[in-house]
Amino acid sequence: MKRIIYLSPFLFIFHAGLGQPPRPPAISSPDIHQDQSITFRYYSRTAQRVSVSGEFLKAPVKMSRDTSGVWSVTVPPVQPDIYPYSFWVDSVQMADPNNTYIFANERFKRSIVDILGDQTLIHSLQNVPHGKINYRYYKSATLGTTRQLLVYTPPGYDPNGKTKYPVLYLIHGGSDTEETWTKVGRANLIADNLIAQGKAKPMIIVMPYGNVRPNPMADFTKDVVNDIIPFVEENYSVIKESKGRAVAGFSVGGGQTLNIGLTNPDKFAYVCSYAPYTATEEFKSNFTNWSPDAKAMNKQLKLFTISVGTEDFLYESVKQNIALFQDKKIKLEPFIVSGGHTWMNCKLFLATSLQQLFKN
Amino acid sequence: MKRIIYLSPFLFIFHAGLGQPPRPPAISSPDIHQDQSITFRYYSRTAQRVSVSGEFLKAPVKMSRDTSGVWSVTVPPVQPDIYPYSFWVDSVQMADPNNTYIFANERFKRSIVDILGDQTLIHSLQNVPHGKINYRYYKSATLGTTRQLLVYTPPGYDPNGKTKYPVLYLIHGGSDTEETWTKVGRANLIADNLIAQGKAKPMIIVMPYGNVRPNPMADFTKDVVNDIIPFVEENYSVIKESKGRAVAGFSVGGGQTLNIGLTNPDKFAYVCSYAPYTATEEFKSNFTNWSPDAKAMNKQLKLFTISVGTEDFLYESVKQNIALFQDKKIKLEPFIVSGGHTWMNCKLFLATSLQQLFKN
Repeated sequence: MKRIIYLSPFLFIFHAGLGQPPRPPAISSPDIHQDQSITFRYYSRTAQRVSVSGEFLKAPVKMSRDTSGVWSVTVPPVQPDIYPYSFWVDSVQMADPNNTYIFANERFKRSIVDILGDQTLIHSLQNVPHGKINYRYYKSATLGTTRQLLVYTPPGYDPNGKTKYPVLYLIHGGSDTEETWTKVGRANLIADNLIAQGKAKPMIIVMPYGNVRPNPMADFTKDVVNDIIPFVEENYSVIKESKGRAVAGFSVGGGQTLNIGLTNPDKFAYVCSYAPYTATEEFKSNFTNWSPDAKAMNKQLKLFTISVGTEDFLYESVKQNIALFQDKKIKLEPFIVSGGHTWMNCKLFLATSLQQLFKN
Repeated sequence: MKRIIYLSPFLFIFHAGLGQPPRPPAISSPDIHQDQSITFRYYSRTAQRVSVSGEFLKAPVKMSRDTSGVWSVTVPPVQPDIYPYSFWVDSVQMADPNNTYIFANERFKRSIVDILGDQTLIHSLQNVPHGKINYRYYKSATLGTTRQLLVYTPPGYDPNGKTKYPVLYLIHGGSDTEETWTKVGRANLIADNLIAQGKAKPMIIVMPYGNVRPNPMADFTKDVVNDIIPFVEENYSVIKESKGRAVAGFSVGGGQTLNIGLTNPDKFAYVCSYAPYTATEEFKSNFTNWSPDAKAMNKQLKLFTISVGTEDFLYESVKQNIALFQDKKIKLEPFIVSGGHTWMNCKLFLATSLQQLFKN
């Protein structure tokens, strides 16, 4: 669903509002060309330096200004994927004002660019049946507040039907939000496509908001186990046993996944941790002097994976995590790929997990 | 659901990524104080001038820098509501990097600040049953593409139940998106609250994406009538007659509302136009030499309202629209309030309409 912005004069006057300087002209950015090169544009008559910085670039690239005040640069062909990027305008890092698609995050404002390419990718919008994403509120007794979460229901899901679905609890990274897995990770489209191909079981995917402060680890584990799971099991037609529950997450959410899953193996038969951040007190207290009954645990856990890219800044730490669990004789499937601590890798990790979950 | 950002050292290192300069420290902005004054903060060691501009201010307000590079200003108490605002950093207008809540829009990037106040407001998150927002894809034969829309279903909605619900088709303003009515207009919470109070009928609210290019008026009318309504009526338990359909919209969407509703009075018994933008070819060709059978139309239309604020830059134009329809003897309820072309007024207009719809 690409949105092309045409120059539309009547749009200029809208939302000018009280105390708002006039809006700049509508320009098209990013423009993705046939050969997968991309032109970025930014309008400013006063900026001294503008550059674009993105996860498809090794370093920021300078943009140059034409006489009308439009700064632009065309970057060489980029491998099809969805990438975060931002502009640097003098001292300021910002999202591309002309791009609707924002990286859902609490701390930074970046845009995302979707390079489709010739091939159909697993996260692209395809002509297959689509599930729904439900935005829901639930009451967290743990946190004493009402919170939002997202629930993907697969195509054909019937709340009153006889089918009981398995549930994947899927957690975003630190400073992301409950929308990041759909808006950046396209979890819903990946699931739609893999279900249509018969490669993933139809499942429900619950995407909560994991940034619990000041204690994101212990308190969020309680919120998931005591509040979110009961909410989901009351409101959706789901399997209420460990064989029907999986937990997965990225980065800080990957650390939360290990804490949630491995301290509750009676509740989750599937644990998938993506590039986990584990330099936390809770991880240390849970696992440093951990002496699990490996045999019992390996029976409970139908799948335990840890995924990471070799260029991830957490790669060494994740290798240590893998060694730690292997040392305790916990059956674990490492999934090591190229690439960094990115949402490009997140999509690959998720697409891989979805084909493994709820199958044994 | 307020999110307080604590200074959390481990977050600093995340998402740094390839070619990304280091991220600034976490700071809290906006900080809303007990007396409804607000402190805005922005971090930059290199900016020369920083100011905040918002729809609660008559003009931008300068921020001043402390020795650590944090720019800030506290603005006097603001009347409780949800307001868009942005920062000006030297020549650059941008969203507040530390605020998660973004104004959903294609052309500008602004943040929103929610001043709760002491009183419960009609758009606030209250302890009442909550409906769901569904993110759905539908195929538009008119536009030859798959598009996204949002569907609010009220508390207790059962897709297989006997209850058939009325449907409000609710359209955003020019350059907004299908998410603006929920993310900025809080249409879901307004509906939750009014339904809980018994002031609004339980209804389904469909929020499509109205920015069809290059012809946002005629093509979108076809998309609504030929694609969106059939999709909704196939997938939801709804009333399939005009008495169970309403159309409402703001600004460009208010103009679309008039075109959609008044050229299809057999399909919509309720037409609510908010601060309509009508300087379009389609409006001219539909209504300039229009000679409706007013008696028949007044029988079909159970409610026709046009709402506008006296400080709206479209106020004079909207008054002319009202006069035009009154001149044609079409029964019309004008709703004139104070305020401008703002989403503060949009929430008021919607809360007013929801109490009138599907009641006669």
